[in-house]
Order: sequence, then C-alpha cells, then structure tokens
Amino acid sequence: MDVAKLRVNGKRLRGTLEEMAKIGATPAGGVQRLALSDEDKRARDLFVGWLKELSLEVSVDEMGNIFGRRAGRSNNLEPVMMGSHIDSQPRGGRFDGILGVMGALEVMRTLHENQVQTERPVIIVDWTNEEGSRFAPAMVSSGVWAGALERDWAYGRTDINGQKQGEELARIGYQGKLPAKKWPTHAYYEYHIEQGPMLERQGRTIGAPKGILCLHWYDVYLAGEANQVGPTPMEGRHDALVAAAEMILAVRALPARMGGNMVATVGEIQNYPNSRNIIPDRVHFTVDIRSWDDEHALKSWDLLKKDFQDIAARHGTPIEIDETWRVAHAPFDEKLVQRVLETAGQLGCSSLHMVSGAGHDASYMNQVCPTAMIFVPSIGGRSHVEVENTRWEDCEAGANVLLHCILKTAGEK
Amino acid sequence: MDVAKLRVNGKRLRGTLEEMAKIGATPAGGVQRLALSDEDKRARDLFVGWLKELSLEVSVDEMGNIFGRRAGRSNNLEPVMMGSHIDSQPRGGRFDGILGVMGALEVMRTLHENQVQTERPVIIVDWTNEEGSRFAPAMVSSGVWAGALERDWAYGRTDINGQKQGEELARIGYQGKLPAKKWPTHAYYEYHIEQGPMLERQGRTIGAPKGILCLHWYDVYLAGEANQVGPTPMEGRHDALVAAAEMILAVRALPARMGGNMVATVGEIQNYPNSRNIIPDRVHFTVDIRSWDDEHALKSWDLLKKDFQDIAARHGTPIEIDETWRVAHAPFDEKLVQRVLETAGQLGCSSLHMVSGAGHDASYMNQVCPTAMIFVPSIGGRSHVEVENTRWEDCEAGANVLLHCILKTAGEK
Repeated sequence: MDVAKLRVNGKRLRGTLEEMAKIGATPAGGVQRLALSDEDKRARDLFVGWLKELSLEVSVDEMGNIFGRRAGRSNNLEPVMMGSHIDSQPRGGRFDGILGVMGALEVMRTLHENQVQTERPVIIVDWTNEEGSRFAPAMVSSGVWAGALERDWAYGRTDINGQKQGEELARIGYQGKLPAKKWPTHAYYEYHIEQGPMLERQGRTIGAPKGILCLHWYDVYLAGEANQVGPTPMEGRHDALVAAAEMILAVRALPARMGGNMVATVGEIQNYPNSRNIIPDRVHFTVDIRSWDDEHALKSWDLLKKDFQDIAARHGTPIEIDETWRVAHAPFDEKLVQRVLETAGQLGCSSLHMVSGAGHDASYMNQVCPTAMIFVPSIGGRSHVEVENTRWEDCEAGANVLLHCILKTAGEK
Repeated sequence: MDVAKLRVNGKRLRGTLEEMAKIGATPAGGVQRLALSDEDKRARDLFVGWLKELSLEVSVDEMGNIFGRRAGRSNNLEPVMMGSHIDSQPRGGRFDGILGVMGALEVMRTLHENQVQTERPVIIVDWTNEEGSRFAPAMVSSGVWAGALERDWAYGRTDINGQKQGEELARIGYQGKLPAKKWPTHAYYEYHIEQGPMLERQGRTIGAPKGILCLHWYDVYLAGEANQVGPTPMEGRHDALVAAAEMILAVRALPARMGGNMVATVGEIQNYPNSRNIIPDRVHFTVDIRSWDDEHALKSWDLLKKDFQDIAARHGTPIEIDETWRVAHAPFDEKLVQRVLETAGQLGCSSLHMVSGAGHDASYMNQVCPTAMIFVPSIGGRSHVEVENTRWEDCEAGANVLLHCILKTAGEK
C-alpha cells in the first residue's frame, strides 16, 4: 500500500464530532462540557470505548489524562504523541479541543483499517481540564504530566462551589493509577481550531504556528472617593471608574502606538459600590498583553504603566498594580513546523506560517519534546462562544495533515 | 418667656445622636441600619420611647411612618410637620437622615421643657425606608403618604433575599393601622446634612436649598463580539468595554462642555463575560444627569446620546438605550426658603441659598404642602460612607434654625 495516498474518512470524522457535540449540547448550538462534570465523564466514556474498538492499549493517569497507545514495529523507540482536550468552556463551541482529539482518533482509525504499521508507537491523548474555566489554571494536567506543575496542588484547586479537582476526578471515575509523569517522547502534534481570523482573512486552510505568544497579565486597583452623585460637583471628584475608563482606552491604543506584533486587552472589570447614584470609589481591572517579542511587550508595559500612573495622579485615584503572571513566548520545533507546512502543500492545501495567540497543551508538551500544531480556520474568527464553527472540509483537511505528519514522524528510526 | 431667645440643648442633641449611632454601629465609625432590619426596629423603639416621654400623641401608619403630635392652641388649624428618616445606607454614616429626626426631637424637647404653646399643632415624623437601598425605590413611604405611590405595590417590593417590604414591616411590629394617607398640612421642614461640599467650600453654616435638581436616569446596553483575546488582532475587534470606556469619558466631559449647573455620572457598570482573556461582548452602564434646569439637562442628553451612537457605530458595538426615569426639578416654597435664610441670619449663622442635588422625603412633601429644607455642612462633602461627619456645633446650629422656623410657622394663624 502506498501510504502517501492514505486519507482519513471525512464523513466519519464529522459523525464523530457530531456525536460528541450532543454531550452537553446547548440550545444555541454550542456545548458545555466543563472539566470533570458529568458531561465530561460521558464524553470520556464514549472516547475510551472508541479507543478500545481499535485495540489500543488504554491507560488513565492520576490526573485523568487518557492515553491510547498503538504499537509500532520498534517499540523500544520513543513514541509519537497527538491529541488535545475534551473539556469545553462554559457555553463554548463544538470544535475547541474536541477537534484535536477526534481528529487524532480519525488518524488512529485510518491507520487501523488500513493495517498500517508505523516504525514508532503512536499515542493519542486527551488532556484533562485544558480550559481552566471550572478549576483554574488552564492546561493543568499537561502541566503536571510535563513536570511543570505539582499533582497535589492541582488536586486541591477548587471550583466556585468549593469542590476539589482531585475529588471530582475520583467522583467521575477518572483518577487513574498511572503516575502523571512525562515519558521520553519523540514528538507531539496538536491539531486545533485557530480561534482567530487570520486563516480566514488570508484564505488559507492550514495554519502552522511557529510558536505561542508571550502572555503578560496585570491586575490594576484604583481607589476613588465615594459620594452621593447629586450634591457632589464635578470639580474635586475622585471617580475611580472615570480613571479606569481612561486607562482602558490607553490599553486599546497601545498596540497601534507601539507598532509590531502585539495585542492588549482589558477583559475584566469590577466597580464598587456599583450603585447608580454613588461615585465609584474602587475599581479593579485586568490587562492582558501578548506578543511574539517578549522585550517589546515589556517595553510597552513600561510605557502603559507610566500612563496609568499619570492618569491616576490626575484624577487623585491612588493606583496599585500587580504584575500577576508572565509567560515567555514559546517557539515550537522548527523542523516539525516546517513538516506541517510541507505536508499541507503535498496534500494540496494552502497554508500559513503564523503564531498562536492562545495557550494550548502544546505549550507544556513543547517543554518535553519537539512539538508543533496544526490549525484550521475558525469561521469569523469566533471561539469560546456557542457560534464557534469550522467547515467540515477544513476539519477533514486538518486531520489529513495530522495523519501524514504522524506517518512521517512515526516512520523515523 | 421671650421665645426668640429659646435655644436647643446642643449637648443633649449630641448625646441623642451618639446613642442612636450605637445601633448598627460599624467598626469604621459609621452605621448600618437598613430599613426594617432589627437595627431599624431597635432605633424606632428608642425613638418612640423618647416621644412618649414628651407626652406626644404617637401613631404609626400602614407604611410604618411614625408620627408624634404635639397639640397647639388651635388644634383645628393644619399642623406643621418636621422630620426625616432613621434608616441608613449599607455601611453608611451617622448623620444622614437621623440628624433630621433627632434635630426635630430636640426641638420637641425644647418646646416641652419650656412649656411653649404653639398656635398650630406640631408633628415630628420618621419616614420609613428613605434610602431605598434594601427595598427600592427610595423615599417610598413619604411617597405613599403623599399619594404618589401605591401602598400595596410598596408592600410587594422585595430585598435581595426575596423578603417583602410589607412582611418585614409586620415582622418588626411597625405595620400600623393608620392609613398611610396625607392630611392637610400647613408646612413641612426637613433638617438634613448637605451630603455635598458647597457649604464647607464657601465657609457657611446653614444651607437653604431653593429646591431639588431634576434627575434623569439612563441605562445603556452595548453588544460586542466575544473572542479569545490572544488570537484576535486589534483591527476588527468589537470590544464593548472599550466602547463603554469612551462613553464614560463623554459623560464625565458633559458638564464642562455644556456649561451651566449640571452633574453627570456613571455609577454602575456590568461587563460580560468579564473574563480576563475574552473580549467583552456585553456591557451595561448607567448615566445619572442632574440639573436645576430640566431643559438644559435634556439638551445635554440629546448631545450625549448622539455621541454614544457615534461611538457605538465606530466600534461596531450596537447600542440600546433606556430612558429609565425622569423627575423634573422641584422648587421648594419660596417663602419658607426665605424664612430659613432669615432665621439663620437672626441666629447669627452664615447661610447659603443653594440647591439640593439629592432627593429627600421633602421631595414628596413638597407635593403636599409648602416645604423647605435646612442643610448643615458635611465634612469633606462625604456622605453615604462611614466617614460621613458633621461638626457638633453645626448640628446644634441647624437644630436652632429648625426650632425658630417651627416657632414662626406654627405661630401663624
């Protein structure tokens, strides 16, 4: 058999995705399958059943990560891994995460039905709680597996109802015995929707991110002076919300002002006492800055921070800033990234060498072994929302790229 | 006895205020005595006991309004009323409302111990739930009494725990039998802290507001497009919070732009999904505009609304606006206002002819009978906060002005 002619079954992939989308389906066409919820359990059970149909060696580790191993010719060689996550955002979409797991399953099915024997073993993985929306932080279980986070700390993370991640793992029956600890791995591929508009805007089918942008998080706290609005003249007010509004516009203006590849966003704001007839005396808001160039992001922050201090001084609203979290940009393995681009070309797909603005389990896997991702277009660039969508033919194209990347990489001696 | 020489007992007034301030005292020196709470009941019981010591005829109406009537020489003449409210804001101050009730009590005590007989009856009143912070709206019981609001509608108003105002009235034993229905009244005086900085800034002791500013409330709703912040470039974003920030600054700039007597404030904002890595797709905020000149406020709103629409169009964030509430400015009785100013002068107090930016029970009483208010300075203009404060000598001065206004008005045949 000429493996170069192998193709996944796009119709079967679609059917699989549609069946998964029923679990936690929301009225507006999305899914809600929060990590370690009953929906997550049902989706995991279905997934494990499908793995067993392919005679894969299934194991579950202490973090609930599910692995399905397909033997190769040389089982002493380090395996090639591929996967993503089954959990979703609250009222999230039908493709985020699950496409990468079902795409990898479709690759396994294609190898199975064509009785393809690879040189190296191939492992499919579902990483527990990538989203971090029920239990923070995100990507926690690939993080534990990679050795970057502590298992017991992860177990102790609680949701808004005070339920512990470790207890919920046990409750749904997915706290395995296998240590959540990395093993030597030859390469990792993660197939995912882009979650942004760049592929669509440029009319390309396959994206190969050269890596993940740096991520800098800040928390800003402003103190104003609360007073009844009616009797308090405009002059002499110390309105924390007005000061925050100026700062939000400074954040919005930052990327254009600085030039270069950067996004800057205020996503969250709390205002107190938040009463329509009282001048706000306390505001908290967040700043999220991402760039491929860590230094550029830091330099931009220095300017922004100076702006914030000037605005706060002008309004008489004392400011406190927490520099909450900084993750450096993470370049993927150049050879694997080139392999994704080259494979797309061989399959007749247009492609784009780009960056990933979002974090993925691939971020932690990148610390373990050569890693690359395969992106397909998100319609309208929408993600983390119920209208999240990707064309079926693009889902199929991405799975074919994954298939042939796996064939090449798992064929390496 | 020369009644012109009568003075209240400032020390006694201070003692009374200090005793009341113990009920619901907060660690930071304020009080929390929410309407119809156990603290409100304890303060009412204390107040009613004090009324009875003066042999006043005490009655409680269906809304829990407490009246203490002191007979005059001609009890067929319409009475003169004075009072304010005992309830407080959450973590509010020790003077808002209670000063007007304890000041009126001190007037009653002064009349009593000096055996002064007035021509007309004099009634002291505590209006239930002026603040509206537990059960909205504010000034509800003077509103029902004045015939502007419905009793049963008021009974049905619920707090955040779903408790009904009517049931809570009964629970604390202050749902009286007397209909909450206005009676013919000769005049009403309300003594209150200014809750703004004007008296302090101008170094005056007594304020006589010519009336209450108009009050226009708006609710603004913006729709953006939620997306993961990392993969979504700045161009093409529809960020509802950025649009709201521009609008907040437009509100802040409105009074200076329009000139004239006006304040404009955004006190409340809700942002959705309010997650640090998702572009906000839904924002609600409030606008509060107040002016002595209703037309000026309306004209200003027209311009602001146009700005809002332009900003929303520029950001691609569709806008909806509710014109929630409009109350016209309410001029008090000119003769009574002049009497406050003249009385202050006779007592050797500096005074200021001003406006009231806040609503008071006097707003509804103004619909029933000739009405005026007496203001004393708020230190730093602070109110609705625990640091709310007024000098004891100013409390005494205001009570003396109230005493002599009452003596004059209750002496009219």
